[in-house]
Amino acid sequence: MSALPHVVILGGGFGGLQVALGLAHARVRVTLVDQNNHHLFQPLLYQVATAGLAITDIAVPLRHIVRKQANTTVLMAQVQSIDVARRVVVLADGELAYDRLVLATGAVATWFGHDEWAQHALALKDSRDALEIRSRILLAFEAAERTTDEAERARLLTFVVIGGGPTGVELAGALAEIARVTLAKDFRRFAPGSARIVLVEAGPRVLAALPEKLSESATATLARMGVVTRVGSVVTRIDERGVELGSERIPSATVLWAAGVRASPLTPSLGAPLDHAGRVLVAADLTVPGHPEIQVIGDAAAVPWRDGMVPGMCPGAMQMGRHAALNLLRALGGANALPFVYRDKGQLSTIGRSSAVAVLGKLRCTGFVAWVLWVFVHIFYLIGFRNRFVVLFEWAWLYLTRQRGARVILGRRP
Amino acid sequence: MSALPHVVILGGGFGGLQVALGLAHARVRVTLVDQNNHHLFQPLLYQVATAGLAITDIAVPLRHIVRKQANTTVLMAQVQSIDVARRVVVLADGELAYDRLVLATGAVATWFGHDEWAQHALALKDSRDALEIRSRILLAFEAAERTTDEAERARLLTFVVIGGGPTGVELAGALAEIARVTLAKDFRRFAPGSARIVLVEAGPRVLAALPEKLSESATATLARMGVVTRVGSVVTRIDERGVELGSERIPSATVLWAAGVRASPLTPSLGAPLDHAGRVLVAADLTVPGHPEIQVIGDAAAVPWRDGMVPGMCPGAMQMGRHAALNLLRALGGANALPFVYRDKGQLSTIGRSSAVAVLGKLRCTGFVAWVLWVFVHIFYLIGFRNRFVVLFEWAWLYLTRQRGARVILGRRP
Repeated sequence: MSALPHVVILGGGFGGLQVALGLAHARVRVTLVDQNNHHLFQPLLYQVATAGLAITDIAVPLRHIVRKQANTTVLMAQVQSIDVARRVVVLADGELAYDRLVLATGAVATWFGHDEWAQHALALKDSRDALEIRSRILLAFEAAERTTDEAERARLLTFVVIGGGPTGVELAGALAEIARVTLAKDFRRFAPGSARIVLVEAGPRVLAALPEKLSESATATLARMGVVTRVGSVVTRIDERGVELGSERIPSATVLWAAGVRASPLTPSLGAPLDHAGRVLVAADLTVPGHPEIQVIGDAAAVPWRDGMVPGMCPGAMQMGRHAALNLLRALGGANALPFVYRDKGQLSTIGRSSAVAVLGKLRCTGFVAWVLWVFVHIFYLIGFRNRFVVLFEWAWLYLTRQRGARVILGRRP
Repeated sequence: MSALPHVVILGGGFGGLQVALGLAHARVRVTLVDQNNHHLFQPLLYQVATAGLAITDIAVPLRHIVRKQANTTVLMAQVQSIDVARRVVVLADGELAYDRLVLATGAVATWFGHDEWAQHALALKDSRDALEIRSRILLAFEAAERTTDEAERARLLTFVVIGGGPTGVELAGALAEIARVTLAKDFRRFAPGSARIVLVEAGPRVLAALPEKLSESATATLARMGVVTRVGSVVTRIDERGVELGSERIPSATVLWAAGVRASPLTPSLGAPLDHAGRVLVAADLTVPGHPEIQVIGDAAAVPWRDGMVPGMCPGAMQMGRHAALNLLRALGGANALPFVYRDKGQLSTIGRSSAVAVLGKLRCTGFVAWVLWVFVHIFYLIGFRNRFVVLFEWAWLYLTRQRGARVILGRRP
């Protein structure tokens, strides 16, 4: 048994999980390593952060997903580096030797050289981030009910979302719904609808990856919901009192960061060439140049597509994961590795209740139709009947009652 | 408006919430103070701790429950003490004057003079406790998969539950199900069914508040599930390596404490006579002797019943809450306060899938019938249609698949 080749997969996200599933029947030993015990359905993480879903609705234990795959072991462990010369993964508490390695550790928030902003702004990458953002949003409203200082109340009720990509737009839309609808009757000393939600984008428009018309539609929808969109605005400072856009100061107690990501900090230890965002410049078959035993997939890989890169979204990561498994199977059978070809699945971005924008090939749509499409695509990709059903129920409930079921503050112990 | 009497309720549990709801139409100002933003359905908290439910399934924001009650303000705040002479509640960040006060702050775990045990054993009182216990249980299995030391693995797979009351029995039963069913296929290096679950009770039998026959039935059910019940066993030491029962040592990585509670630490500041568990010895109308403006209800009050006290369970707290509201309304109308009379609603205790014991007046039952009864009573008392529906669905899913949907470890950040 131990003579079988050992495939180590780092990361149980959309990419890494597909590799493991693709090797279910292969004559290899598979070890799937993740720092968390669960696969996270990241496209819906903003709904956990905005109290629409419970974290358990979008998280499935990795062990559970591969439990019937006898060749696969799951290890919950912190990876510190990769020793490519010795073919060993260095863990916080040990080492793991590999014959083949797939790096699928995704991306982390980047602060564009201002790491001190990380203390004051909240980025949304994992389950802990989501619960912390949820608590901070709800606590800001709680504190606004306590204070008697009008300026402080205004600061507590100002939410700044930095970054006008899909995550920023989703967060801003959900915040507007919370303030104007969900909490409308919950406070006595202020009207929650007076909360200000400011979406800041450095570029000329939100959802820049979509056609200009859809950006305009999204901006108009956000405006109707009460979100102030500030395009062409560069953040120059974030501190404990708020945000500065050049000479303008926006006092705010809650600053959410959705402005940029870079590859996970593991990529440099591969010793391979990286792009400006720390992504590995992989060969056409997703291997590291000079290391055919190492593949890099998902947000950690820079894979050319059209005049840019394969976008860092779920379909790209899943396709690369399946492709990595395919090439591993081919290698076992003595066949050559095939180059990876990305198949564009379009883009979908939701803004709020009944509103979304969609690009599917030549098809473009907005509003309710796009939103229904968004609902079905996301339910379809959610793993496991249980989660699909619960999320669909929560959404139906939210749609009908506009109440959010997960408004629970789980603070730290005093 | 501010000339209306100000009723301050401390605690938004089963008792405090009933007071607030009972004053919905009264000509008073009501302020409901809680350190959390949510009401917690505590009878199901053990299911959150054992990964069967999400915390959001059993927690409802207090503001949401009283949102249509214009006379009621909710404050999320830490209460430090009560100054009965000045009629003021001292908060961590301010003061709150009252005309009438209802203390409904419940109970906390007590360590019987061994406060150092709190570092090593986990008590289950609030939402944070439940998530911490869940993480610790799941992390013990994760660590068992990592270790190569057989003695350490045995220690990691030994779970000791201290206290054979309803909570201890429920926790032990759920742990047995997790190990023997839920996780049965999830690990490669050990059989989760080899986990040892030890339920330790100092008295002669578990569920001592129930008739002896039902205790026997519960013990037999636990034994069939693989739980070792140790009655007449007094814990003499708890440390980071395990538990000592006199001269016997049980190495264990996860020790759960369900052995005893005492009244919340606020009761001494009332200056009233207390019983051995810190509960206020209230008058027949639930007021503090010499302070008709202060009522104490729920687990913070010692209320005689039969040859003991009203048991510290949900029905007693709710009845006292409704009674406190009634007496406040009577006082507004110039009528005398009425004495509180407890109406016994029986006792229900579940052990695991399809198994429970019940006492309802003269009716006693066990097994599946008692379990169905338990399900319906708990669903009936859950607040809000949404929570009822989601919990019923989770239970149906658990019953059919024996999978637990909430197996997510939310550890602290490194």
